[in-house]
Amino acid sequence: MAGNPDKRVVEIYDTTLRDGTQAAGFVLSVDDKLKVAQRLDHLGVHYIEGGWPGSNPRDKQFFARAGELRLKTAKLVAFGSTHHANRRPENDQNLADLLGAGTDVVTMVGKTWDRHVTIQLGVPLERNLAMIADSVAYLSRHHIQVFFDAEHFFDGLKHNREYTLACLKAAAEGGAKCLVLCDTNGGSLPGQVAEATRLVRQTLPGLAVGVHTHNDAELAVANSLAAVEAGASQVQGTINGVGERCGNANLCSIVAALELKMGLRALPEGRLPLLTDTARFVLELANQQPRPFAPYVGRAAFGHKGGLHISAVEKDPALYEHVSPEAVGNDRRYLISDLAGKAAILRKARDMGLDLADNDPALGRMLEELKAQENKGYVYEAAEASFELLINRVLGREKTYFQLMDFRVHTHKEANNILGCKAPGPVSEATVMVLVDGRVRHTAAVGNGPVNALDRAMRKALLGFYPQLAEMQLVDYKVRVLSSADGTAARVRVLIESSDGRSRWGTVGVSFDVLEASWQALSESIQYKLQQDETS
Amino acid sequence: MAGNPDKRVVEIYDTTLRDGTQAAGFVLSVDDKLKVAQRLDHLGVHYIEGGWPGSNPRDKQFFARAGELRLKTAKLVAFGSTHHANRRPENDQNLADLLGAGTDVVTMVGKTWDRHVTIQLGVPLERNLAMIADSVAYLSRHHIQVFFDAEHFFDGLKHNREYTLACLKAAAEGGAKCLVLCDTNGGSLPGQVAEATRLVRQTLPGLAVGVHTHNDAELAVANSLAAVEAGASQVQGTINGVGERCGNANLCSIVAALELKMGLRALPEGRLPLLTDTARFVLELANQQPRPFAPYVGRAAFGHKGGLHISAVEKDPALYEHVSPEAVGNDRRYLISDLAGKAAILRKARDMGLDLADNDPALGRMLEELKAQENKGYVYEAAEASFELLINRVLGREKTYFQLMDFRVHTHKEANNILGCKAPGPVSEATVMVLVDGRVRHTAAVGNGPVNALDRAMRKALLGFYPQLAEMQLVDYKVRVLSSADGTAARVRVLIESSDGRSRWGTVGVSFDVLEASWQALSESIQYKLQQDETS
Repeated sequence: MAGNPDKRVVEIYDTTLRDGTQAAGFVLSVDDKLKVAQRLDHLGVHYIEGGWPGSNPRDKQFFARAGELRLKTAKLVAFGSTHHANRRPENDQNLADLLGAGTDVVTMVGKTWDRHVTIQLGVPLERNLAMIADSVAYLSRHHIQVFFDAEHFFDGLKHNREYTLACLKAAAEGGAKCLVLCDTNGGSLPGQVAEATRLVRQTLPGLAVGVHTHNDAELAVANSLAAVEAGASQVQGTINGVGERCGNANLCSIVAALELKMGLRALPEGRLPLLTDTARFVLELANQQPRPFAPYVGRAAFGHKGGLHISAVEKDPALYEHVSPEAVGNDRRYLISDLAGKAAILRKARDMGLDLADNDPALGRMLEELKAQENKGYVYEAAEASFELLINRVLGREKTYFQLMDFRVHTHKEANNILGCKAPGPVSEATVMVLVDGRVRHTAAVGNGPVNALDRAMRKALLGFYPQLAEMQLVDYKVRVLSSADGTAARVRVLIESSDGRSRWGTVGVSFDVLEASWQALSESIQYKLQQDETS
Repeated sequence: MAGNPDKRVVEIYDTTLRDGTQAAGFVLSVDDKLKVAQRLDHLGVHYIEGGWPGSNPRDKQFFARAGELRLKTAKLVAFGSTHHANRRPENDQNLADLLGAGTDVVTMVGKTWDRHVTIQLGVPLERNLAMIADSVAYLSRHHIQVFFDAEHFFDGLKHNREYTLACLKAAAEGGAKCLVLCDTNGGSLPGQVAEATRLVRQTLPGLAVGVHTHNDAELAVANSLAAVEAGASQVQGTINGVGERCGNANLCSIVAALELKMGLRALPEGRLPLLTDTARFVLELANQQPRPFAPYVGRAAFGHKGGLHISAVEKDPALYEHVSPEAVGNDRRYLISDLAGKAAILRKARDMGLDLADNDPALGRMLEELKAQENKGYVYEAAEASFELLINRVLGREKTYFQLMDFRVHTHKEANNILGCKAPGPVSEATVMVLVDGRVRHTAAVGNGPVNALDRAMRKALLGFYPQLAEMQLVDYKVRVLSSADGTAARVRVLIESSDGRSRWGTVGVSFDVLEASWQALSESIQYKLQQDETS
């Protein structure tokens, strides 16, 4: 591990592949898990907990295929619990599966809250102590380095301090190399975590201490950092903070704080800028919605709004940024809104590769056009593709790939009762007439609802001219009513997000008619795609 | 304010309506803001920051209409900055607008980081001190209680401790009643916040201290609590933590921690169980995606998975819950065998005046129907009228006022270019066939867009039978796409709010077709109105 040798190192232990997959809706296949492990190694974490081989076949398969990985920095870890109360270590299937995983390191979880031992496990308190010591000792004898996850440690300490500490001592006697204090229910406060960490360090000096927290009180990051300040040398968490209920401790925020704010070393030199890509990769792979507001790695994390504010950031970014976006591999963004001034537009135009001077007169026209559009209800914060088309329009650089001549959409709904039998759902049909290069294409399609019918008819009409539209698809569609006072006659804004597998872009449409607004956003999305393909 | 008089009170200052609306995509109309203010008062916060009257017409209009509010607990606050460097307080428009807002309390923001004063404001450091003192003093002379928001306080303290403290002293000399320490860039650590808070308390004893944090380091909640532990008596934040970049401090998590974990008083006795409803109401109103993983108030916050785990919770919820879900108005959810919800339904049924026993067998049927509907995408948090109709259906108490036989909607859009002249906007026409008391009414209407045409045709068909529908109108209409993966073919949920001048009610419809979903919500809205008129 490179880096400043004077800096204290905090070990980063990732459990995205095990505890993270307890989150509702966060599902990874074995292939996905292998890909994530490879990325985590590239990021430079110290430990990757791959799964619980004794609990399900998928995790067992992951360890069987772990040889495919080329890990350079990280060590793979298998997770499991202490042996069954009615077994001995030698004939416990769970421990056999842990040995079978073939890792050099195992994390062994054991109960340390007396109430859990009595109520959930249903074994005498003494028996639990023996289970901890014997399980750890058994693996240690097989030359495995054992970390002990002290389940419900902080709650246990509150209710029966002596017993909880006795559990840690049992693990230490068994040969555990690190005692990991778990806030399993996620309700502890930073002061409590710091105090408990200090207590363990005093009670069992010489043993490494780790921390594993959950975010039920929105304090998982703070609790992890409090433990480190109190002497913990290992932090367990997940990428993006995924996990059961409110999630695990978010390693993205923890790693950034340790390195950028606390003067500690968490990753090998030069790896921190991989953080944002790693975080987004994991979300994409698990098909999760992006989290724009995520600290450090979200798209909005370094977003600036408002003219004065933007001009200040241009002069000196530290005025409005707690860390530099480059440090964590993120980008500064200027939100395009009517509060934004010319600086934001200039910045955006330059991102598009346009060579504009600071005082280019076109900037004024762009700002005017932007304000006029925003008055009508258009917003460009989530519709950057529409904004680029706007800039091109103002500069007279737009290219027309197709023109609408006419569309009609018809929806018919019959109720069940008309003939006394169950009627089919509503049927929507759209007809579209478009002009491309002087040729008219007139076609029709049905769809699931009127907007979908219109979308399908449009693509059908254009696909003959532009076959590359086949690779494009809508990934998100949102409708918002702008003025609530007029009920269903109010204007609506449609926001669309499209993807062609390589990139994603947003477009916007506004009308009193949801179909016309959808048409606009769909058209601009296609227009943008065709233009991008031509210039790239 | 009721409650245990021995408990120290921490004042809750909500800035959802001002700083919260800086978040990308979080937009509230004046009507929305009035509704949120009413709910915040009901929750029992101490202060509601309504907006910045000097910065935009919408906020000015909010204060002009604030008289419509019936606030019982909260005080309304206007927000603004110190006077312009080239003006005097008496002729500064921003200060005039603050007076014009007519609130008893004003929060005055001033720069306290020397670098900001020099670079962004471009005024000498001494001049900024005078601007702070004079602005606060000017408002104080008008019998306004002034809170001073010390912008970039923590960064300022790091770079030029003396100057930053001098800014606070200037505000104190001007007569400020509370010094609010702002972590504007959101990058501070809890230890730094605690130390700085103690420093201010020592330097300016006798003055109240507040804290205002942002979540850029995922520490906003921890930083707020650290300040309270160090003596701060006011916490500023937003519902759900909405705000610029990564958001403001999340008041939901802060209030719950203060009351349930720190033995302090933040809300009037008995109000904490309103927390979850308030949080969800604000999200719904702003048409934001739900946040299932949100601490305390998210749908997943008390979700339990797995048989063993669930039986343990059944034996003793504290085994796996850091606080009781009822304490914050949330529900325990069992992800496999759902037993949750009966209490909530019972509460709702009793709100409707139904006399049900705790073990009434109808509760089970209601829960089943509710779960079936929620599986289809219905939500009842903002559609209580639809929920009441659901309960009536289960109890066999529903009355049918009309039946749909058939509807058709047709939209036609012609482009400008077809005849070389400007074409009219799109035209929508709807035909509706309904059955009332054995009589068929078949009629047609045009409208501004397809949904409005359908709405008009429906009312036209029913008005002859139910003339009281003339006094009813739609006041809000919202559409959300439920599953974004399928683009325009996804299912949509329509939420409608209606009013008859005396009361307002919400209904919901779900379908893959926006028109069918709208029909459902419109029908239930009319159904509810007719039923209410009959029983009241």
